[in-house]
Amino acid sequence: MKTHNFSAGPCILPGQVFEEASQALIDFDNLGLSVVEISHRSKNFVAVMNEAVALVKELLSVPETHEVVFLQGGASLQFAMVAFNFLSEAGTAEYLDTGAWAFKAHKEAAGLGSATIVASSKDKNYNFIPKGYTINPEADYFHCTSNNTIYGTQMKSFPETRVPVICDMSSDIFSRTVDVSKFDLIYAGAQKNLGPAGATMVIVRKDALGKSGRYIPTMLKYQTHIDKGSMFNTPPVFSVYVSMLTLRWLKENGGVEAIESRNEAKAALLYNEIDRNSLFVGTAAVEDRSTMNACFLLNDEAHKAAFDDLVKAAKINGINGHRDVGGYRASMYNALSLESVQVLVNCMKELEKTHA
Amino acid sequence: MKTHNFSAGPCILPGQVFEEASQALIDFDNLGLSVVEISHRSKNFVAVMNEAVALVKELLSVPETHEVVFLQGGASLQFAMVAFNFLSEAGTAEYLDTGAWAFKAHKEAAGLGSATIVASSKDKNYNFIPKGYTINPEADYFHCTSNNTIYGTQMKSFPETRVPVICDMSSDIFSRTVDVSKFDLIYAGAQKNLGPAGATMVIVRKDALGKSGRYIPTMLKYQTHIDKGSMFNTPPVFSVYVSMLTLRWLKENGGVEAIESRNEAKAALLYNEIDRNSLFVGTAAVEDRSTMNACFLLNDEAHKAAFDDLVKAAKINGINGHRDVGGYRASMYNALSLESVQVLVNCMKELEKTHA
Repeated sequence: MKTHNFSAGPCILPGQVFEEASQALIDFDNLGLSVVEISHRSKNFVAVMNEAVALVKELLSVPETHEVVFLQGGASLQFAMVAFNFLSEAGTAEYLDTGAWAFKAHKEAAGLGSATIVASSKDKNYNFIPKGYTINPEADYFHCTSNNTIYGTQMKSFPETRVPVICDMSSDIFSRTVDVSKFDLIYAGAQKNLGPAGATMVIVRKDALGKSGRYIPTMLKYQTHIDKGSMFNTPPVFSVYVSMLTLRWLKENGGVEAIESRNEAKAALLYNEIDRNSLFVGTAAVEDRSTMNACFLLNDEAHKAAFDDLVKAAKINGINGHRDVGGYRASMYNALSLESVQVLVNCMKELEKTHA
Repeated sequence: MKTHNFSAGPCILPGQVFEEASQALIDFDNLGLSVVEISHRSKNFVAVMNEAVALVKELLSVPETHEVVFLQGGASLQFAMVAFNFLSEAGTAEYLDTGAWAFKAHKEAAGLGSATIVASSKDKNYNFIPKGYTINPEADYFHCTSNNTIYGTQMKSFPETRVPVICDMSSDIFSRTVDVSKFDLIYAGAQKNLGPAGATMVIVRKDALGKSGRYIPTMLKYQTHIDKGSMFNTPPVFSVYVSMLTLRWLKENGGVEAIESRNEAKAALLYNEIDRNSLFVGTAAVEDRSTMNACFLLNDEAHKAAFDDLVKAAKINGINGHRDVGGYRASMYNALSLESVQVLVNCMKELEKTHA
């Protein structure tokens, strides 16, 4: 019986990717060696890195103005790198505070220089995306977080502004189409829709770099990694390799537009049930609901044991809500099937039938 | 026929570790889920991290004054982190320049503050370890690199000084016994004797932290990772998991003292042949020869094609020297067997028999 993995992450990947990665750990490219024990400068691994970068560019229609690199340290290290590379000594940055990660991103910029929170939904436990704010036209950049895993909210559009827009897309990259040309920097930890934790994908507008005027440690400088094709030092070879396999799978399955349709169908199935079912209530503002992470509560906690039993019997994994929201959180990353969502919806219907 | 992997890295690991990791990628702990798709905060993964840290402490006899964390970014990010955490605004640091990596480490400190090269073997292409230098007793720290993969040199002892000693042990950690209490910080990229590239192990004396007086970005602060047990953000789960498996293997095989004896036997076998064989010459000063990486040249380049053919027929991989030294480099990390070294030595003997 199949396990249905609704975990918020690390990564949920297609079965065929895990199978291929498992094999390559023993024997890669018929070399008689593991993919992690060959030199990262061998032609076999250079081909992996090149294909990963090329697939990112193809699948997201990255314009020639931008470059793609694979780094380490997760989005959390990007919080600091963004500030080092884009926030000038005399300048200021604007941050949209839509959750714990956005808040941490702002903290790193504020530690280094001047950074303002332009709008926040913190006093509503981040259950909506603020709108109607004004971005200081003199700011060095505007920073936002496209999807908030903890609260189940997602930006459905991005502000039109002449200020450079920088976005943390860790938890919805490759889940929907995005106009990369509108962003000076997009970054994403791999561990949702891309690959195992340990790699961070960055898409950066090349001519936006070199302007902060700060001393930037070599490893924190985006230009370092662009110049060396993500091989300034040993890259996280396995995470990059598995990311490449996942991107191949995505391409074979119709690319980002096709997965976006499937993700919308999955989300519609679950949110329709949350709204229809008398025992459940969603926590996020309806217009800001995430297609990746759906947060919902039981109207009556007395039904918790019964629902948890149903879910467990159905082999559903990772559905407990984050402690900051409580209740349940169903994460529906790219590799999660519609059938798995149906299994969850069936559990909700069954609970209503027996307990309403 | 077995491939003999003399590559300088990424990691050379025991076959049983690759087998177990390959299986855990599909189904970990009988969860029906991959080790990389479960939450890093699940009890199953927390157990992995705890065991990895405990094994480091046990195998290296880490005193209670020190803590062990697993980070990202490789030794290259440590170059900057060391300076942020240990180099005060008014202070200075002393660096021993024994190769390209030591030189880069110094560069990151010099970018942030005052850092001196106390001694260097650069003018001899780093073919020896400088000795007899004096360390400024007022320095914030002394930094050295225990093993130099490119040049095949290794520090056989460390200076006795009251200045805190910080050491990059990326390429010989767990290959020999070391008195951890003598160091304020030891760091090592995983990808030689520990696990796949993507994790960096750090051992730090706890009471040495918090003294640089600098603003330190959260992710670059060692205290952040100590406080959160290496889980401030999503750790590189696969690299940590495989590192844990490798440490288990090391313990089962007698620990660091036992592997040190085996490494010495492997190195003796190869260096004896380099010295005995009329066709080859070693490049490193004899007293500084590395047990991990042996660099040697053909006395006559005319024999190169013949030797390369012999090596290829024996399924020896990764033996080409680094471009800065030329010739050959045989890396003999923990997981490389004495039998593999014997295969290489046999090729050298065969060349002499047919071409001397």
